[in-house]
Amino acid sequence: MDKLNIDQHISQQYNSALDDLKTEFLELGGIVEQQIVNAVKAITDVDTVLAQEVLMTEKEVDEREMQLDDLCTQIIARRQPTASDLRLVMAISKSTRDLERIGDEANKIAKMAIAISDSEDLPHGFSELRNLGRHVQEIVNDSLTAFARYDIDMALKVVNKDKEIDREYATAMRELITYMMEDPRNISRSMNVIWALRSLERIGDHASNISEQIFYLVKGLDVRHQTPDEMAQQVNKQRK
Amino acid sequence: MDKLNIDQHISQQYNSALDDLKTEFLELGGIVEQQIVNAVKAITDVDTVLAQEVLMTEKEVDEREMQLDDLCTQIIARRQPTASDLRLVMAISKSTRDLERIGDEANKIAKMAIAISDSEDLPHGFSELRNLGRHVQEIVNDSLTAFARYDIDMALKVVNKDKEIDREYATAMRELITYMMEDPRNISRSMNVIWALRSLERIGDHASNISEQIFYLVKGLDVRHQTPDEMAQQVNKQRK
Repeated sequence: MDKLNIDQHISQQYNSALDDLKTEFLELGGIVEQQIVNAVKAITDVDTVLAQEVLMTEKEVDEREMQLDDLCTQIIARRQPTASDLRLVMAISKSTRDLERIGDEANKIAKMAIAISDSEDLPHGFSELRNLGRHVQEIVNDSLTAFARYDIDMALKVVNKDKEIDREYATAMRELITYMMEDPRNISRSMNVIWALRSLERIGDHASNISEQIFYLVKGLDVRHQTPDEMAQQVNKQRK
Repeated sequence: MDKLNIDQHISQQYNSALDDLKTEFLELGGIVEQQIVNAVKAITDVDTVLAQEVLMTEKEVDEREMQLDDLCTQIIARRQPTASDLRLVMAISKSTRDLERIGDEANKIAKMAIAISDSEDLPHGFSELRNLGRHVQEIVNDSLTAFARYDIDMALKVVNKDKEIDREYATAMRELITYMMEDPRNISRSMNVIWALRSLERIGDHASNISEQIFYLVKGLDVRHQTPDEMAQQVNKQRK
């Protein structure tokens, strides 16, 4: 091969390493998204078999997280990426951790599903869990789609929806606490529902973190610790 | 300057950039450690002024987190570190996020301190909060010292102590739930203590995460998702 061909060959290898990284990241995203769906279904259908299935996925998620991290470091060490390529690697390195944490929270919900299945009466809060679960799964899905498409507008929508989810969570929590006060025999069981709601709220935060990384990835902007309005303003300023 | 001097100069600059990175990381660690101490004191002394002080530190922590992240990316892009230097940058990049989350949890505790200060009776669980708070602050401090000294044995101790903290947390939680059942009028207030305990348990997890990064930093080992025994075995295997 002459020099030009060797250069082209190296450049193709490099691009394919970045593509592989992105594909593996999105695959992990798909796995933890399914974990959320199954964990919420396990708790609200009192399905311990499904809960066990969620827990059995933990190992795969952990392994994929470590592989992705390893891949990120390898690309940095061997290919020395700069500019937008480096931003892609750093954004995936950070967001991989969010995906693993989402899987972690789904596992906690699955454990609550198993804990609840022992009790005779079913605790309150199942419809809240179902609704919050659906909304949280939606924004995890949207954050991954936004990442795949480098879609800033969609990322901004995720951050906004996460604020709605926080309000929905606060309302559900108030209702459950009122219910516990009215019937204190249910406190133990209700606490399991409270932990599951809390896990869902945390998953929403992780989806929001992933979306913040998309701003960095596409625009080089660090929008963490900003309100959705501030983020939109900063993006619009850059567009002008 | 001749070539040798220029090389030495660049190499000095590079080492000083890495030293600065490590110093700034440890400084941020000191700030969030103080936030934990103050937040726990604020809740158990019912000191809303101190709680406000904790909340006012949030902005500085957020800014320092973003600066540290920026510094990590700059070092990777400009200096193209490899081997142990790259591991230092990646370990700091990951652990910075843990420090910011520790600050976040300290803020949540400070908010609970303010919420509790409105009520007439003081809720149960303050001695548990005080003890758990002290233990958690200790392992945050130990994880930072272990990081500063590249001390694997100390890092392993942190991971082990975090398991103790998890058990201490579970005991405190069971006691509080029993107390809520006995006197359901206290549920609302007790929930604030429960959230504060939960935040402390999370801080312990973050200290443990930082310690896991020390294994990677010093030995190049990824010990995440391993039990303390497995970690010790892996380190011993390498030492032989």
